[in-house]
Amino acid sequence: MINSRVILARRPTSLPVQSDFAFDSVPVPSPGPGQVLVRTLYVSIDPGMRGWLLDKPNYAAPVPVGAPMRSFGVGVVTESRSPAIATGDLVVGMTGWQEFAVLDATDVHRRIPPDTSSVSAHLGVLGITGLTAYVGMLEIGSPTPGDTVLVSTAAGAVGSVAGQLASISGARTVGLTGSEEKRRLCLDQFGFDAAINYRAESDLAAAIARECPTGVDVYFDSVGGLMLDAALGQLNVGARVPVCGTIGLPPGGAVDGPRPERTILVKRLRVQGFLATDHLARLDHIAARLADWLDSGRLTHLEEISPSLADAPSALVRQLAGDNLGRCLVRVAPDQPLPRTASARNRFEEAL
Amino acid sequence: MINSRVILARRPTSLPVQSDFAFDSVPVPSPGPGQVLVRTLYVSIDPGMRGWLLDKPNYAAPVPVGAPMRSFGVGVVTESRSPAIATGDLVVGMTGWQEFAVLDATDVHRRIPPDTSSVSAHLGVLGITGLTAYVGMLEIGSPTPGDTVLVSTAAGAVGSVAGQLASISGARTVGLTGSEEKRRLCLDQFGFDAAINYRAESDLAAAIARECPTGVDVYFDSVGGLMLDAALGQLNVGARVPVCGTIGLPPGGAVDGPRPERTILVKRLRVQGFLATDHLARLDHIAARLADWLDSGRLTHLEEISPSLADAPSALVRQLAGDNLGRCLVRVAPDQPLPRTASARNRFEEAL
Repeated sequence: MINSRVILARRPTSLPVQSDFAFDSVPVPSPGPGQVLVRTLYVSIDPGMRGWLLDKPNYAAPVPVGAPMRSFGVGVVTESRSPAIATGDLVVGMTGWQEFAVLDATDVHRRIPPDTSSVSAHLGVLGITGLTAYVGMLEIGSPTPGDTVLVSTAAGAVGSVAGQLASISGARTVGLTGSEEKRRLCLDQFGFDAAINYRAESDLAAAIARECPTGVDVYFDSVGGLMLDAALGQLNVGARVPVCGTIGLPPGGAVDGPRPERTILVKRLRVQGFLATDHLARLDHIAARLADWLDSGRLTHLEEISPSLADAPSALVRQLAGDNLGRCLVRVAPDQPLPRTASARNRFEEAL
Repeated sequence: MINSRVILARRPTSLPVQSDFAFDSVPVPSPGPGQVLVRTLYVSIDPGMRGWLLDKPNYAAPVPVGAPMRSFGVGVVTESRSPAIATGDLVVGMTGWQEFAVLDATDVHRRIPPDTSSVSAHLGVLGITGLTAYVGMLEIGSPTPGDTVLVSTAAGAVGSVAGQLASISGARTVGLTGSEEKRRLCLDQFGFDAAINYRAESDLAAAIARECPTGVDVYFDSVGGLMLDAALGQLNVGARVPVCGTIGLPPGGAVDGPRPERTILVKRLRVQGFLATDHLARLDHIAARLADWLDSGRLTHLEEISPSLADAPSALVRQLAGDNLGRCLVRVAPDQPLPRTASARNRFEEAL
């Protein structure tokens, strides 16, 4: 059997382009003791990939040239040499951009309930992006009724959930986004109380002040850079700034800007970086809460799913340009019958 | 009766100099309803005064030209028109640099127990600097055994207490200070496990790395600027950075530097500004804990007390140049007999 992969052909020095990637086909690997073979159903496209590609200090080692692009993925276990995981289990882990992945059982982030209503959601609102929004907004931002919450990349996979969680907490929410289409999406689909198309504003700080007349109590930051500068000036005393991304900085992030420490002191700010992957052990619990809100209609999400693995590089370029809408995923294999095991009764099987 | 004062004669645009201040004598004011008249015993000299003097956004309005310099002070109530405070009570509040101050009873930060062993300590280790060290180190830094804690201005009033509180918490402590004399003080008097004279180091980041071979888990920052940059590079994942001052920045603090947000994200840092004055309501409780450690010898402190109010401007200049050792205070009146009331049995009275 053949494993189709998207590999890193050349290390980008700045933003990745499509030609940094190549396609190859290799034999499907065999799992060793304690490992499982996963047939990938969906892989994710994440802003953090920009950092994973660079040969610079980061929270993860750079993806080696010649290796499949690192990514989250959800798939079905087709062979297991681990007593903890059965053939037919649906699992989430770092599959990479490939049809088949061998994972250590200990590297499987999560087993998905077999009755799940949406497999792909486990890479989004019920997975890593939902976890990012939950930890950042509810545990670090901690908005309370009366607070004003400003959210960057508000129409995106993380920002849209973060904003809705702030609304659920009783806060007034203001979204920052990069087009009129996304601004409407923030208001109409994600329930933001106000939204700013930053590309249409000549003075972003003034626009934030206009839409946040009582100041900002939580700034959910996935951007850094000039947008963070503009937000810092509008923060109230005691405000919280969860930081989950720096997509507004040049790749690598080494650039000068106004020093924030005086503002941090004078306003008694809490600026806190976090990565959802540090909180994976709690994902089952948190995903169950998010699923309740999805089921009750208090939370909504949007996916943009490219139809085949070959689309992954272009989807990444599109995502980094801010041209996507919603959680950006790639379908690697059509939802398909699972091997007939007792645990494999999920809806996509039943649909066949 | 005459009230001698040190007033702000001219607003400094950068670091204050002695000639920015002037001396005057005015009649002793009379307290109105709900106010008390305080005869000042000691006033404090604080790095934060640099910011209070500038006409720039800050956590406190700028000191008006012509008004007595704002400062913390401890004194004895000589006349009370408040039912909550008695003549003879020892109180801490914003007396300013003057012999007599009228304070609203609600602006009295604290009444000191009449049996206190040291009046001046209530402006230092048992007052605002102890509170700063306690909140910043124990509540924001939260060191645990095995952590390495790096402390800026480690021989100073706040830093020396912060370092000792980290030691009490079981952490390894490393002090940053500006002279060999202060470095010895850190090691010999304040019990730091290591100390760095930053003026003797050509590469501060390398010096921190040398003295903190397992990285830094808490950086107690009262400096900002280049020292913060050097510390950020040595922080471990999950490190905490309590920020209580920015004395390393130019006055006003508006200056560019390397953007920290990528480091904050990658290392999942918590950078948090705080002001002790936000926590005054808990000072009695916290001072009692600090007093226990002082009494048991686990905590030591150092005071540098100038002998008269006329010394206040030069003491401030000296403090801002980093030339003082220990908590910088000015004695305004000699410890003196209190009016004979039932509550006035403190040691400085007994000594007379």
